[in-house]
Amino acid sequence: MRRLGFFGPRGTFTEQALLSMPIAGDAELIDYKTVAATLDGVRCGEVDAALVPFENSVEGSVSATLDELAYGEPLVIVDEVALRVEFALMVRPGTELSDITLYTTHPHAYAQCRDWLAAALPDAHFSPALSNASAAVEVADPASRFQAAIGPRIAAEHYGLDIIADNIGDNEAAHTRFILVSQRRQPAPPTGADCTTLVIFIRQDHAGALLEILNEFAVRGINLTRIESRPTKKQLGDYYFSLDIQGHIGEARVREALAGLHRICLEVRYLGSYPRHDGRANLAPETASDEAFAESMEWIDALREHGRPPEQ
Amino acid sequence: MRRLGFFGPRGTFTEQALLSMPIAGDAELIDYKTVAATLDGVRCGEVDAALVPFENSVEGSVSATLDELAYGEPLVIVDEVALRVEFALMVRPGTELSDITLYTTHPHAYAQCRDWLAAALPDAHFSPALSNASAAVEVADPASRFQAAIGPRIAAEHYGLDIIADNIGDNEAAHTRFILVSQRRQPAPPTGADCTTLVIFIRQDHAGALLEILNEFAVRGINLTRIESRPTKKQLGDYYFSLDIQGHIGEARVREALAGLHRICLEVRYLGSYPRHDGRANLAPETASDEAFAESMEWIDALREHGRPPEQ
Amino acid sequence: MRRLGFFGPRGTFTEQALLSMPIAGDAELIDYKTVAATLDGVRCGEVDAALVPFENSVEGSVSATLDELAYGEPLVIVDEVALRVEFALMVRPGTELSDITLYTTHPHAYAQCRDWLAAALPDAHFSPALSNASAAVEVADPASRFQAAIGPRIAAEHYGLDIIADNIGDNEAAHTRFILVSQRRQPAPPTGADCTTLVIFIRQDHAGALLEILNEFAVRGINLTRIESRPTKKQLGDYYFSLDIQGHIGEARVREALAGLHRICLEVRYLGSYPRHDGRANLAPETASDEAFAESMEWIDALREHGRPPEQ
Amino acid sequence: MRRLGFFGPRGTFTEQALLSMPIAGDAELIDYKTVAATLDGVRCGEVDAALVPFENSVEGSVSATLDELAYGEPLVIVDEVALRVEFALMVRPGTELSDITLYTTHPHAYAQCRDWLAAALPDAHFSPALSNASAAVEVADPASRFQAAIGPRIAAEHYGLDIIADNIGDNEAAHTRFILVSQRRQPAPPTGADCTTLVIFIRQDHAGALLEILNEFAVRGINLTRIESRPTKKQLGDYYFSLDIQGHIGEARVREALAGLHRICLEVRYLGSYPRHDGRANLAPETASDEAFAESMEWIDALREHGRPPEQ
Repeated sequence: MRRLGFFGPRGTFTEQALLSMPIAGDAELIDYKTVAATLDGVRCGEVDAALVPFENSVEGSVSATLDELAYGEPLVIVDEVALRVEFALMVRPGTELSDITLYTTHPHAYAQCRDWLAAALPDAHFSPALSNASAAVEVADPASRFQAAIGPRIAAEHYGLDIIADNIGDNEAAHTRFILVSQRRQPAPPTGADCTTLVIFIRQDHAGALLEILNEFAVRGINLTRIESRPTKKQLGDYYFSLDIQGHIGEARVREALAGLHRICLEVRYLGSYPRHDGRANLAPETASDEAFAESMEWIDALREHGRPPEQ
Repeated sequence: MRRLGFFGPRGTFTEQALLSMPIAGDAELIDYKTVAATLDGVRCGEVDAALVPFENSVEGSVSATLDELAYGEPLVIVDEVALRVEFALMVRPGTELSDITLYTTHPHAYAQCRDWLAAALPDAHFSPALSNASAAVEVADPASRFQAAIGPRIAAEHYGLDIIADNIGDNEAAHTRFILVSQRRQPAPPTGADCTTLVIFIRQDHAGALLEILNEFAVRGINLTRIESRPTKKQLGDYYFSLDIQGHIGEARVREALAGLHRICLEVRYLGSYPRHDGRANLAPETASDEAFAESMEWIDALREHGRPPEQ
Repeated sequence: MRRLGFFGPRGTFTEQALLSMPIAGDAELIDYKTVAATLDGVRCGEVDAALVPFENSVEGSVSATLDELAYGEPLVIVDEVALRVEFALMVRPGTELSDITLYTTHPHAYAQCRDWLAAALPDAHFSPALSNASAAVEVADPASRFQAAIGPRIAAEHYGLDIIADNIGDNEAAHTRFILVSQRRQPAPPTGADCTTLVIFIRQDHAGALLEILNEFAVRGINLTRIESRPTKKQLGDYYFSLDIQGHIGEARVREALAGLHRICLEVRYLGSYPRHDGRANLAPETASDEAFAESMEWIDALREHGRPPEQ
Repeated sequence: MRRLGFFGPRGTFTEQALLSMPIAGDAELIDYKTVAATLDGVRCGEVDAALVPFENSVEGSVSATLDELAYGEPLVIVDEVALRVEFALMVRPGTELSDITLYTTHPHAYAQCRDWLAAALPDAHFSPALSNASAAVEVADPASRFQAAIGPRIAAEHYGLDIIADNIGDNEAAHTRFILVSQRRQPAPPTGADCTTLVIFIRQDHAGALLEILNEFAVRGINLTRIESRPTKKQLGDYYFSLDIQGHIGEARVREALAGLHRICLEVRYLGSYPRHDGRANLAPETASDEAFAESMEWIDALREHGRPPEQ
């Protein structure tokens, strides 16, 4: 039986996202307390793969995930899923909206529901919790001083709470992107709508390095869809880059660009090629297709061997 | 009397950083509960300026600060300071190291002292707090179940705790950079070692936009020292850029580059030109100096008016 | 009365081109033996301006013109004209096509009429002349061993020859572009369809210099329409560049690009901004218009003085 | 026995250059009247290879050679040689310097000896010839009205003239570069100091195409040593590019760049990889060496097949 890990505890958006993936159907799900622990579960073989949050359209990237993938024992991303962030207001059965004077949740969740709360609970007070799930646990305790928690619907289910208001987030478009991570292995074949994730460390004190990196992609007709700089933890002003490109290591233009980066950078860590959650096809120009690469290689090989292009 | 705000509460690294600045000498210091509240204090004139954390060499940028400066009512940065992050282990007077079985601090602080803690307190347990300062407040309470808190030295002073181990962070090089923010006003003159901070929103669906932005700087001999992408909160994959360049808006190459960005970007928000905390001189090439710009303008003006270069 | 020079002798395409320009209407026309002599006529004030050939769509650029403008006492281009190259077969009155056994012209003219000659005069022989005009002069002599000359129509008129076949060139599209050169003076105002000609000497041993030059234009949205490399006469492999860009020194983007080149190059020689012969409007993007530049300058000036953009 | 052609007639610099090459030692040498005829001699197999002039450090490129190689039935360059251009003043035996009142040569040769002639023969007159060799032929005729010809030393030998002044050119550094051309065949192996010559036709109406071409080289660490634009003969303003790069098609970075150009350009014509006449080693950075390419390919292949870099 397949075992899958996730960044827990139970009752978080990560669990909800994992349950939405077909792979979770017949798997045993195991929750971990931190992103690092989740990934360690994959590394030591306790689970076959694990889901962790990667970036949120409101809060930005999840630093713990970026840094663990950049510095920890190497892993690869094999799939991704995006989940609309929908917050529910949860109470112990029997509590009504008008009973709420004190509620709790993680400050991020609070920040994202502020407008709704100001309108619906103008007189109630907020107190921060360490996570959405711990807020639900707290409220589930009949002795709690809190009457309500805010978090993903799934938390109500897990902790026996009732949802008395759903979808209370202020930003309808808020999404979180989660990645499924496994031990390193051969990537699945390209689908035509793939993403490749990389971590790049530049050579020291090299102004213009970012421009060079972008040029390696531009010359091969490859689009960047995400680029983040993160501190290397050595000193202020020293960064590495985490980035996503359109395309798959099984495609020639991606291979050539990665090899180029490998030559000019201090280190390029390949974090996997996998199908995009939105299924949108890559926008590579015709001149950068696998067919164009194959034809150009045939051309150059003929020139090299015979001094003339191939017969047509 | 001057009034200065900071992201509190009292007893955090931000307060410690502010106290290290000459400007704090004769000022009244006011602490705010959130970064947003701190900046609002500046906006409404409650304080003349305020200090907030901007980036940390281990944790990365402070999203709340980046987003507030990008989206909130505009402000400018007028100064910066960097502080070495030194953690102290604090106890109620009388407590000894061997008494400690349970301690608390913010998870970031815990993460940065993990090695020291594993060696010195192998059997004690950690429980997370919402902030370093709230951990100190908690421990200061004689009824607390915690025997120790971890945080900046200044917290011990404020909350009546004793420091029984100092400088327990695992990373000697860890620094946080703080920025002093004021209402928009004319920047102080260039010092030759200045930083200019910008927020850039690109036109929608424009692949290659980042390359264009970097080229605007490269062509004018300007170095980038920081670049971050942050979500625009609209949808996954839609980012704005926050960046620092070497140079001052009072210098010609910076003005020309900013004007160029203003023409090609959806929006460029200028966040101030101010002296670098490390005093390192800018590395602009001779061909990008103010003298070179002035001479080239004289040359072009003569050509335009007389069809010939100026007499020499 | 205005005096205009041209690269002669009488009876060449250059004279024909000059006569097609309105400015020639009431002027005294003076022919010179070489391009250098023609330009010297302008330099010493013997003529107010002079027409010389610049490039031909079949033969390429006229090296003598390029080099004279690059190295000689500086002049500027004030206008240009393009002429379709139409060759006529000219004979002494009374000669018929079937009488022709030996004909002469400049080897370039011969090369451009080869197909027609092979079909119409399969048995006649060709002997090279030093110029089209000298061929006509030769044939005009009743004692000449040649029965026919090939050259511009105007030569027949000048030297009393009859045209027995017109428009015998093989390439219908062949054109020559001529430039009208004067002493340096203020350029006429922009027309919206202008060309600016430059000569650029790069700093020695600087690989990547051409890329830098092209970037100075690209960043300001300026199109190149011609670029030539010419030897500097110092050693093999040492070149200068002669180039045309779309736009006028009276336009902000052109001024900024020229000033940028002036800063990074060994020498930039401005050879004038003048209306294009084809009247085609410039293709600069909206973000590079004079309005966009003016607005961006206003923006940057407000930022510099007040730390905020101009009120709108 | 090997047969080698050259652009004649006998007595030109091209013959002198050919005789300086070891390959000419035991070969039969055949002269042709034009560059086109010379190359046709190679195409039809009349000669095994042929030498034609390519560029001159004073006059620039030889258009006939560039255009023939760009448009004619394809050939490749297999070697090159550079010759210092040294002019001799030649007379019929018995003539003295003071006897000279009229002399002849090609106008290019005249232009390059003007200073010497002004000093040594201030009162003599010049009359142009169609080539240096035809000037020598003319003067060799006892009935000639000319007393002297100017040209390469070898012409005196061929036409029975005496050299009464040698090395009379004004520019000590003047050199001509000649190329040895053969039918297309496998290139000789790289020497580490090679040149590769290309002809590039860009896609129509594509502003920025030259920048793209230069980027294909720059990204692979390849230096350009010559770039010329030549008219395509279609219309004014439509050009192709002839260029030399440092490196050999047997080197990985060159192959990758050529394949890239092949994908984005209308047509790339490969004109051969051959040892540089000056023997100067290529300046490719370490990150663009064959070793670096091989290592990067091994890296990418391992990633593709196993999702992990090769064991080290």
